[in-house]
Amino acid sequence: MELFFANEIREGMVILEGDEFRHCCKVLRNKEGDIVHAIDGKGLLMECRITSVSSSRAEAEVLSSTTGFGAHGYRLAVAAAPTKNNERYEWFLEKAVEMGIDRCIPLICEHSERKTIKKDRLERIVLSAAKQSLKAELPEIDDPMAFKEAIKEYSAFEGIKAIAYCGEEYRREELATVISANRKRIKDIGMIILIGPEGDFSKEEATLAASSGFVPVSIGSSRLRTETAAMVAVAAVYTGMSACTD
Amino acid sequence: MELFFANEIREGMVILEGDEFRHCCKVLRNKEGDIVHAIDGKGLLMECRITSVSSSRAEAEVLSSTTGFGAHGYRLAVAAAPTKNNERYEWFLEKAVEMGIDRCIPLICEHSERKTIKKDRLERIVLSAAKQSLKAELPEIDDPMAFKEAIKEYSAFEGIKAIAYCGEEYRREELATVISANRKRIKDIGMIILIGPEGDFSKEEATLAASSGFVPVSIGSSRLRTETAAMVAVAAVYTGMSACTD
Repeated sequence: MELFFANEIREGMVILEGDEFRHCCKVLRNKEGDIVHAIDGKGLLMECRITSVSSSRAEAEVLSSTTGFGAHGYRLAVAAAPTKNNERYEWFLEKAVEMGIDRCIPLICEHSERKTIKKDRLERIVLSAAKQSLKAELPEIDDPMAFKEAIKEYSAFEGIKAIAYCGEEYRREELATVISANRKRIKDIGMIILIGPEGDFSKEEATLAASSGFVPVSIGSSRLRTETAAMVAVAAVYTGMSACTD
Repeated sequence: MELFFANEIREGMVILEGDEFRHCCKVLRNKEGDIVHAIDGKGLLMECRITSVSSSRAEAEVLSSTTGFGAHGYRLAVAAAPTKNNERYEWFLEKAVEMGIDRCIPLICEHSERKTIKKDRLERIVLSAAKQSLKAELPEIDDPMAFKEAIKEYSAFEGIKAIAYCGEEYRREELATVISANRKRIKDIGMIILIGPEGDFSKEEATLAASSGFVPVSIGSSRLRTETAAMVAVAAVYTGMSACTD
């Protein structure tokens, strides 16, 4: 099944323009009368029949729709420091979307090497990964957010809050253990995990997080790159939430 | 700690040449008398003092050594079909090394889109990732191996054998569950997991594997790319083996 992102949806009709149109009608040569599948980016999968194709757009009528298509069944936010090398962060995000992520916050920390992101590029990568992995809901990509702001935003959050921290001031729990002990809460409310830059979070950042209810966690015992830690955290939730409830 | 790969080791002396030498002595400007750390690729970390630097090589005497440096405590082999895009396979391998992998077999299957690998390049990536993640043991990278041959090689293997298969002929277990139920065996003997090409394993391949003791598994419920599935499998073992034994 090939998915297209509906640039516009109104009155039971879907419009495909730009790249989506070109891929649908020029590359794949879909034409009037053909059935195609479109997503709205919010969980809706629509089975459509193309009603008209012009030189720049296609219109299709919605025959039926399914909500929550490709949903992963829990809410996961990852606040990860942008990596010096942009490609590495893009790679993490593509893998995170394939597995299941609801929100990515580029986190700006004391030791951050990069404080900007190429948001357009990240959004294109997210859309492409969502279509390829058959998900109708696109995660949100935030603008870069300061560490203190992220902590503040999640201060009242009742889901699981974790910070991957390498310092030794805190006795850390293993992330996989935190997940398996809190499956219901992650499913019903959600989880956020903070991943720091190459130089790790500062002591002050770790203290602020811990005092705001973030559990200091370790992600296995290897020294992982930032984008690897972020990806493994998403994988730990992805596989942990699929495992049998004992 | 910066690690260097000892191109040659003899009689308590370590030799650095080529890229390792250039990085050590030209880029980082280490010189006679300086302390550097070298690995042998087989688990040995050596603390050395540089005794001489020429235009093309450095010699250092080994002061002390540690075995099993950076070891992950279990043996994991991943036989994954090479991806059409080489870069994707390289990303998987880099991440697998960061987490912990002992052997990578490029698996040639019925639906394989690519039957060759750039072995030199993969070995460079593996070395780089091992040094960056502070591991003294380099995983083996095999030459491409036919599916039947891999099954045959592991026929007498007493560790955990799993095949990630999407077909519905077999009732599949969740990989994370197989791991948590077999931690001791994975630690003491090891595990091998087979990851198929984009078109999945054929029915015949799945049947041959199942009849050779490979457990058909699913890796969560998303449709993952080959390199993503391979990476998530390594992450599932990595995080699963770190979690508390209940």
